[in-house]
Amino acid sequence: MEQTHFPTWPETAPKLISVAAGRAPADTVIRGGIWVNVHTREVLPGHDIAIVAGRIACVVPDATYCTGPDTQIIEANGRYMIPGLCDAHMHIESGMLTPAEFARAVIPHGTTSMFTDPHEIANVMGLEGVRLMHDEALLQPVNIFTQMPSCAPSAPGLETTGHEISPEDVAEAMTWPGIVGLGEMMNFPGVANADPKMLAEIAATQNAGKTVGGHYASPDLGPDFAAYVAGGPADDHEGTCEADAIARMRQGMRSMIRLGSAWYDVETQITAITKKGLDPRNMILCTDDCHSGTLVNDGHMNRVVRHAIDCGCDPVVALQMATINTATHFGLEREIGSLTPGRRADVILTSDLRTLPIEVVVARGQVVAKSGSITVECPHLQWPDHARGTVHLGHALSDADFRIAAPEGANQVRANVIGVVENQAPTRALQFDLPVRNGLVETGELSGEADVCQIALVERHRATGGVTNAFVSGFGYQGCMAMASTVAHDSHHMIVVGTDRAQMALAANRLAEVGGGITVFRDGQELALVELPIAGLMSDSPATDVAAKAQAMMEAMQACGCQLNNAYMQHSLLALVVIPELRISDLGLVDVRSFTKIPVLEPVS
Amino acid sequence: MEQTHFPTWPETAPKLISVAAGRAPADTVIRGGIWVNVHTREVLPGHDIAIVAGRIACVVPDATYCTGPDTQIIEANGRYMIPGLCDAHMHIESGMLTPAEFARAVIPHGTTSMFTDPHEIANVMGLEGVRLMHDEALLQPVNIFTQMPSCAPSAPGLETTGHEISPEDVAEAMTWPGIVGLGEMMNFPGVANADPKMLAEIAATQNAGKTVGGHYASPDLGPDFAAYVAGGPADDHEGTCEADAIARMRQGMRSMIRLGSAWYDVETQITAITKKGLDPRNMILCTDDCHSGTLVNDGHMNRVVRHAIDCGCDPVVALQMATINTATHFGLEREIGSLTPGRRADVILTSDLRTLPIEVVVARGQVVAKSGSITVECPHLQWPDHARGTVHLGHALSDADFRIAAPEGANQVRANVIGVVENQAPTRALQFDLPVRNGLVETGELSGEADVCQIALVERHRATGGVTNAFVSGFGYQGCMAMASTVAHDSHHMIVVGTDRAQMALAANRLAEVGGGITVFRDGQELALVELPIAGLMSDSPATDVAAKAQAMMEAMQACGCQLNNAYMQHSLLALVVIPELRISDLGLVDVRSFTKIPVLEPVS
Repeated sequence: MEQTHFPTWPETAPKLISVAAGRAPADTVIRGGIWVNVHTREVLPGHDIAIVAGRIACVVPDATYCTGPDTQIIEANGRYMIPGLCDAHMHIESGMLTPAEFARAVIPHGTTSMFTDPHEIANVMGLEGVRLMHDEALLQPVNIFTQMPSCAPSAPGLETTGHEISPEDVAEAMTWPGIVGLGEMMNFPGVANADPKMLAEIAATQNAGKTVGGHYASPDLGPDFAAYVAGGPADDHEGTCEADAIARMRQGMRSMIRLGSAWYDVETQITAITKKGLDPRNMILCTDDCHSGTLVNDGHMNRVVRHAIDCGCDPVVALQMATINTATHFGLEREIGSLTPGRRADVILTSDLRTLPIEVVVARGQVVAKSGSITVECPHLQWPDHARGTVHLGHALSDADFRIAAPEGANQVRANVIGVVENQAPTRALQFDLPVRNGLVETGELSGEADVCQIALVERHRATGGVTNAFVSGFGYQGCMAMASTVAHDSHHMIVVGTDRAQMALAANRLAEVGGGITVFRDGQELALVELPIAGLMSDSPATDVAAKAQAMMEAMQACGCQLNNAYMQHSLLALVVIPELRISDLGLVDVRSFTKIPVLEPVS
Repeated sequence: MEQTHFPTWPETAPKLISVAAGRAPADTVIRGGIWVNVHTREVLPGHDIAIVAGRIACVVPDATYCTGPDTQIIEANGRYMIPGLCDAHMHIESGMLTPAEFARAVIPHGTTSMFTDPHEIANVMGLEGVRLMHDEALLQPVNIFTQMPSCAPSAPGLETTGHEISPEDVAEAMTWPGIVGLGEMMNFPGVANADPKMLAEIAATQNAGKTVGGHYASPDLGPDFAAYVAGGPADDHEGTCEADAIARMRQGMRSMIRLGSAWYDVETQITAITKKGLDPRNMILCTDDCHSGTLVNDGHMNRVVRHAIDCGCDPVVALQMATINTATHFGLEREIGSLTPGRRADVILTSDLRTLPIEVVVARGQVVAKSGSITVECPHLQWPDHARGTVHLGHALSDADFRIAAPEGANQVRANVIGVVENQAPTRALQFDLPVRNGLVETGELSGEADVCQIALVERHRATGGVTNAFVSGFGYQGCMAMASTVAHDSHHMIVVGTDRAQMALAANRLAEVGGGITVFRDGQELALVELPIAGLMSDSPATDVAAKAQAMMEAMQACGCQLNNAYMQHSLLALVVIPELRISDLGLVDVRSFTKIPVLEPVS
């Protein structure tokens, strides 16, 4: 499939001018709508939009003068015409979908522009993976802009990723047609400490005139924050309270506030506008991470805008935060984000500005969805074979790979255990005394009240055969089971959690067999499987299928005794060695409070 | 003089970070001010600004932690700290000053960023002239960005400029360091008619990612306006009423509203914000044209902001219109326009947000003015000799060059006469019967009530010796006098107006002698002279000197009987063949209603 070039404004200008002047007919006219003007913050009844070559030629009270016999007429019938919605920061991989299938899922919700950071695939496949995502993005009938991932690995020295991203990679990516900037600069201590590699990535982006995405995940608004801002990130989506949002905007950053599947940061921050009355131009809505189930059942950016309105935000201001504010931030305000001449003709028809039913979606002048159903193709890239074969285990695993030997002669050991905390991304560093049987430390029902089971980080990028074994507490698993996933932020090896070593081996080998995904085994039977063949992260099946399988997977976790609200997310974050307190990586057990490796078993004193 | 490179944010980032983190001392700290935050539209007492390497490292409640023994302290003493003011669209030549002297005049008024269109010199010296202006601009201690002139000649086919600007020139200029976009696209009929040359200039600018300046000088907001907008101009400063401003903003352009020496377009348009309550982010203040007298006596952008406030605009909103709105428009919001980290440290201290006294001006971290006096050098370019020798007459002029012969045997003729209209740029196409003496048409006191005198357009670019003679009415000149000027918009030949042919020759020859400027002669004596040696348009003397000479020149015009309010402006616009009704060019008398040449004397019927 060849990349399609969408003609630029200057390339289209002669046609746009001719239509606007009335010398040539429009391809399409949207007739008789209420023009929601996000530049002036006005709602203007009685307007037509004339479209040619995928762009808006003019918005006028009566476009009859640029209507010809072959002009397609879309009757707005007095409905609101709003700009297509923009998601300012998001990871497509979080939907477990390829860009094509993600687009197919969100277009009926009115999302016509996405700013995506393919950070996950960057860890698995490096620059090539980013390029593949970028290339599939450019095939879509909507606008998917790519932010070049900045931090792979997230924690240099504490994990081994499949690939790393270098400043040279960043500089190269800045020359690609679909790159709009640098993806969230997560290494905020690195920036605050003037780490040369991080600054080189930022410089490559700034020198290319593009936008540096931020990620300052700390409540500290003192000198560390000041130093991070001075380093150049232009936005941040990690704020969680009003003070965070205000601090970012005052310092000349844009505050991105997110409503993802598991992020609820809009209600707590939008009060900077709704209560404090600050200029709203620097606040932007985004999702960051949406699971396929959210996309299928709840929506995408329409869900975020509705929520902002429910939080007391004026509907047109909320729309500005999902359209023109975003476009301006990325230097694209003359390309997307408003219904004005020259811009891509991305238009939503809706009969209510508060509940925001997405009735018709037009992207680049083409009707792409009607009444919640997509009406166009979302072309798939021909993914290379090696993108579908990224699970390299070295050898078939067995019970033996998961054994944790006790010190000679011990009947019991004291173990450092990762403690999962309900509804939180951080874990706790716990210690438990665990029994020893036949020289091996045992868990599962033998651990009693402690609710401890085994966790393994199985190396899957270089077929080293490496397995790091440790312990985790809090899942509530019972019986003889294991769950494995190749979604294992951020290095995306394979995380296997189980009460039984044989089940762990079965689960791991199963994922190797299907090329990655998530599986749950109990008593030798596979209870659920989500195949994620592309990079072990994404499926190219429709969102509805993936959402159904993900739902079955979560039910299987429950069937094994897990009662956590976001059990799958807890599982997939256990290798995220940048969030305290205790994590596992291919290099061992990591105490993220001190950024040091610690032993799994405490030495016998 | 070598061009100075002001280090970029990424080049400065390590220093900025170190200061913000408290690991290194700031060069300068402005202490204890009220932070006027144009991002959030807040006024925040109790803040310090730490500066290093000319940029803002941090803005914090207490910058003691980044203050060292060598840090320069500027005590704000509870005054407001506002960003340096930006003039979004202006012509330096209108001040009859070089960029250096213009900068020296406006810096004490708090202007630290200017977006200048050297359109006048482009007509005289072409791309080289633009480059010279651009190069002198980059020598200054404040930010002078250059917009590449788009329309030389303004009226192709109706005048001969010294040089023309081509799309190739535009493309070349886009690679220069100080170019931010295309200067006002005045050929609005050309754009609306998809003129390939105009579209090529716009395309070169858009393809370079820069801003296309607009100039739609028509009250027609119908299809012609729609077609112009579709062509790509991103702003417009030619609106004169509220409806103009609103139309531009709704269509996704920025509405620049101007208060120049003779433009009063703020009061009539700012009501779109103050009365109609539109989102102010797309309204921007500018001057367009300021005479040296205005700069010396009244101010520059501080005058415009004060006026906007006097018109009922909230002071912080008015400041946004002269700072962040401008910066955002030109894609420079991370470089100038707010007091936030990474930006150039352009700061004004003022004790009152409404009257806006400009007490201290800091530019790029350096105190550049205090209490209305400049404290830095504004370096002059070494202008090449040929830039100082642009008045080429071909031969010394005499009475004979200004004779207008009557048809054989006529005692009286009917003449087409340019009618100057008080306080308006447009002229009227008049007809008068004029007496004939010795075969020559006579004017001056012989024309009686008609108040007709002669006008000549003297070719001065190519030494063709060409003199176009015609008649003008309305100056009220009496006695035996002439006035000549090499400022003659837009082609900048020489305009000579007089009641006496011998005086006209004296005046013209005098300007050839001094290399251009403005002179007034009476009875063989020079009453006033403003030398403008550079391109015949600008002086490199201080603004106070030029303003004094210009004042003397205007008094000389009055002494010759002229009572018009803006007599010099009327004079210098008489060759502007794009404004109706009648103008003079090197090609003849031009009826701008029909864009055709007409005879000076009506044929005898």
